Amino acid sequence: MADVIRNATPHDVTGLLGLTRELAEYEKLTHLFVATEDTLREALFGARPAVEALVAERDGKLVGYALYFHNFSTFLSRRGLYLEDLYVQPALRGSGLGTALLRRVAAIAVERQCGRFEWSVLDWNQNAIDFYTKMGATVLPDWRIVRITDAALNRLAGATS
Amino acid sequence: MADVIRNATPHDVTGLLGLTRELAEYEKLTHLFVATEDTLREALFGARPAVEALVAERDGKLVGYALYFHNFSTFLSRRGLYLEDLYVQPALRGSGLGTALLRRVAAIAVERQCGRFEWSVLDWNQNAIDFYTKMGATVLPDWRIVRITDAALNRLAGATS
Repeated sequence: MADVIRNATPHDVTGLLGLTRELAEYEKLTHLFVATEDTLREALFGARPAVEALVAERDGKLVGYALYFHNFSTFLSRRGLYLEDLYVQPALRGSGLGTALLRRVAAIAVERQCGRFEWSVLDWNQNAIDFYTKMGATVLPDWRIVRITDAALNRLAGATS
Repeated sequence: MADVIRNATPHDVTGLLGLTRELAEYEKLTHLFVATEDTLREALFGARPAVEALVAERDGKLVGYALYFHNFSTFLSRRGLYLEDLYVQPALRGSGLGTALLRRVAAIAVERQCGRFEWSVLDWNQNAIDFYTKMGATVLPDWRIVRITDAALNRLAGATS
């Protein structure tokens, strides 16, 4: 089996969109999924790219991907790298493709002199936590993500004046 | 008292660095603090800005700031906005400056059509959690941040093998 990890190109958009939809199905979040080929192409390859992608191929077929962008640490005063998605098709899990994607993103973080490489995990996903911990990562115990969207975001924004 | 919330300019770098150091002291994280005027200027106003900033002035004096950057939601297929720091000098807390900064960042998120506006909170900071919840934000209960840095990051990247 020939495995290839490479940067995504505009030719991958159709296949990549299919994989992101598979991830939404796996996470039971298809009700939130509104991506299209056009929005994904614009996000990755438009005038102001919002995100970057690696794809994993096995025997010439797209079977996984990683999406990442830069965040920032004030105290380190430099960019970090944040992994938004890491996905490998279920039938191919455990075959090393996920690790290969993660290592490649880590290599990009090092190459770009990022102070840290971060991502998120569900607190009940002990297999993933064990895997990440074994590779030297730390699960921050006490930070929580706060999110505001839609009408509540508009209300917060609109009450400025 | 005249309060002003405005975009930071290169003239603010010295004052802004002082405020970021105050935040590091407040969080007892000065051992991680390596920012200098040069690195902060480059991050905010260099050829490839890594982060954006608002400052809060009271009676012409810099007393608070917000630092933010864009993240990305795959399922929404669009940028979000992430608030990295929100800081107001301790003596001025409760005077509305923090809320004014937060509202202004929310307005930027809406103006740029971001799908969501996010930040982080410590799980023991109940006052902050109550404040955010009251304004319509949600604290995601089950996501944890995973972080890898320094030697472990280099090892993952394969740089040492």
